[in-house]
Amino acid sequence: MKKRFNVAVVGATGAVGSEMLRVLEQRKFPLSALKLLASERSVGRRIDFNGTKLSVEQLTKHSFAGIDVALFSAGASRSLEFAPEAVKQGAVVVDNSSAFRMAPEVPLVVPEVNPHALKNHKGLIANPNCSTIVLVVALKPIHDAVGLKRVTVATYQSASGAGAKAMYQLYEETRQIVRQFKVRPGDFQVPPRLTEYHMPNLKRIRVLPNQIAFNLIPQIDVFVEHGETKEERKMALESRKILEQPKLELHATCVRVPVFVAHSEAVTIDTDKPVTVEQLRAILAKTPGLKVVDDPAHGKYPMPIDSASHDEVFVGRLRQDPAYPKTFQLWLVGDNLRKGAATNAVQIAEAVMCPRSE
Amino acid sequence: MKKRFNVAVVGATGAVGSEMLRVLEQRKFPLSALKLLASERSVGRRIDFNGTKLSVEQLTKHSFAGIDVALFSAGASRSLEFAPEAVKQGAVVVDNSSAFRMAPEVPLVVPEVNPHALKNHKGLIANPNCSTIVLVVALKPIHDAVGLKRVTVATYQSASGAGAKAMYQLYEETRQIVRQFKVRPGDFQVPPRLTEYHMPNLKRIRVLPNQIAFNLIPQIDVFVEHGETKEERKMALESRKILEQPKLELHATCVRVPVFVAHSEAVTIDTDKPVTVEQLRAILAKTPGLKVVDDPAHGKYPMPIDSASHDEVFVGRLRQDPAYPKTFQLWLVGDNLRKGAATNAVQIAEAVMCPRSE
Repeated sequence: MKKRFNVAVVGATGAVGSEMLRVLEQRKFPLSALKLLASERSVGRRIDFNGTKLSVEQLTKHSFAGIDVALFSAGASRSLEFAPEAVKQGAVVVDNSSAFRMAPEVPLVVPEVNPHALKNHKGLIANPNCSTIVLVVALKPIHDAVGLKRVTVATYQSASGAGAKAMYQLYEETRQIVRQFKVRPGDFQVPPRLTEYHMPNLKRIRVLPNQIAFNLIPQIDVFVEHGETKEERKMALESRKILEQPKLELHATCVRVPVFVAHSEAVTIDTDKPVTVEQLRAILAKTPGLKVVDDPAHGKYPMPIDSASHDEVFVGRLRQDPAYPKTFQLWLVGDNLRKGAATNAVQIAEAVMCPRSE
Repeated sequence: MKKRFNVAVVGATGAVGSEMLRVLEQRKFPLSALKLLASERSVGRRIDFNGTKLSVEQLTKHSFAGIDVALFSAGASRSLEFAPEAVKQGAVVVDNSSAFRMAPEVPLVVPEVNPHALKNHKGLIANPNCSTIVLVVALKPIHDAVGLKRVTVATYQSASGAGAKAMYQLYEETRQIVRQFKVRPGDFQVPPRLTEYHMPNLKRIRVLPNQIAFNLIPQIDVFVEHGETKEERKMALESRKILEQPKLELHATCVRVPVFVAHSEAVTIDTDKPVTVEQLRAILAKTPGLKVVDDPAHGKYPMPIDSASHDEVFVGRLRQDPAYPKTFQLWLVGDNLRKGAATNAVQIAEAVMCPRSE
């Protein structure tokens, strides 16, 4: 009989946690029991899983007795406090926070990219940042085929990357602005000066550092050194670790956009060897976890509304200026809650608990 | 007495045309008369200018008798048909369409960047594309100081760049989606699958190639060769012409975002000589037409809602990986209807009709 496991989801009521439950269900992860853990505020809330209502329990140091796999997505501070405890009690932890990602002894894994890094895990495996996962799934086959000399990336990251409350902020700001517009159908002569709109409850709903409705915020996470944000830093450091290219030149600009789900990335890549768009398309088409959507003649390219709720990273807009045969561009879109977080975490759990060779 | 001019605005009811009227008013352009021209559909519409109601007249070949300056913003086909006629009748034409931009005998001008190109005009001057203007205002001083080796740019372009109807599309799609959301305050657990929402009048309101509300469209204008869009091609060709750098390496990705007004651009620049962020900040701070907004410690950086309705291009997020002293990054935001179109066109008219030396 196939082995089954006791699984705990830590942060089960959050944007990523809810998606983890959906992914466990859809991928038919071999569960014997499922424990939903969250902070005190959510205790007692009942969540449907495979037709059964499960009650959310409070996360404590005693939550992990008998747990085989713990999927953490409750922020770095909770991971720092509770993940080592879960490991001590015998669980394999897959941690979606940034707490342990850069620790040398902790594997940072995208199963399509560096599954071998799982081999020597010590009970704790880190799930990379959502924007990094979307990127490295595409970078890996290019690296293997023609070498990566330099990567320049500008991101278009959705509100859900900052959690369920940021999605609510986008919804509520949008609702309030739209209902105050004075518009005659078909007539939009005067551009709305969006700063003038009245939003009485803004302070209560705002979790992002600025208005996101009909706006862009060129800041994700806090600022660190050299004018960079932590998100931009993460993309470079995590990509280098996952690709095992400690010197990879990577320049990122990370921007929050008024989209609910799916992160998009405009990527310019310089390679060691010349490559044509046709070669590139063939390489990407056979890469697990990628879906090539690239038919501009018929208006087909990846967009957030099409890739949200899918597990693959969509890639398109492949192109190259013929004057520069070692440079090309592409456009990536991936559901940040799925492959960017929940799906990747569950894939890691599957690879560790149910290896193919078994 | 100061000379005054008869001015015609062609496409006076459009997004850029309306903004041209506002700019003429605000900059106190020396008018003796103002003629509003548009297609038959808008004839008779009355528009307020400086407290007077002006009637929109139909654009014909006979519209330009006695006109000194004609500001065209009614699309390339109308410019091709009527601009040469206006020139023949003695008007100086500033054309905001793409019709004549790359013609060798037509100056393509951003007054802060290449005013000298106006000298030998033959009656027709082209206004560059909105995303190009925002970019070259920042590129020029960097080129002059340390040389441009390569420019990589990803744009975040607002709906108004595609005209008033595209703004209306963004508004109407957003309104319909938001009112169908099922949301409890503070609870946004299930990401809305936006493709499932019912929009009965979509076909009528859609002018962009796809849904723009809560989405991104990585296509602006039509596709041309090598998988590029015409917008991406324009950015490279027009920047080379304006900067007089016919071989400038420029890689652009142009994306439409759900913002009403202001285009944003994530730019990575490689220079010929090393430069520090401090040197760069000093160079940009003294550049006319630019406003440096770059204080991440206090959460200050350019955003569309702040720069819309301003004439300057806002620049921030200046940064550099210390390992690469000839590479740096910045973030530009400019109102595409103002500096990206109307303001630049009126500045050209001022430079031609009222030169400083007069």
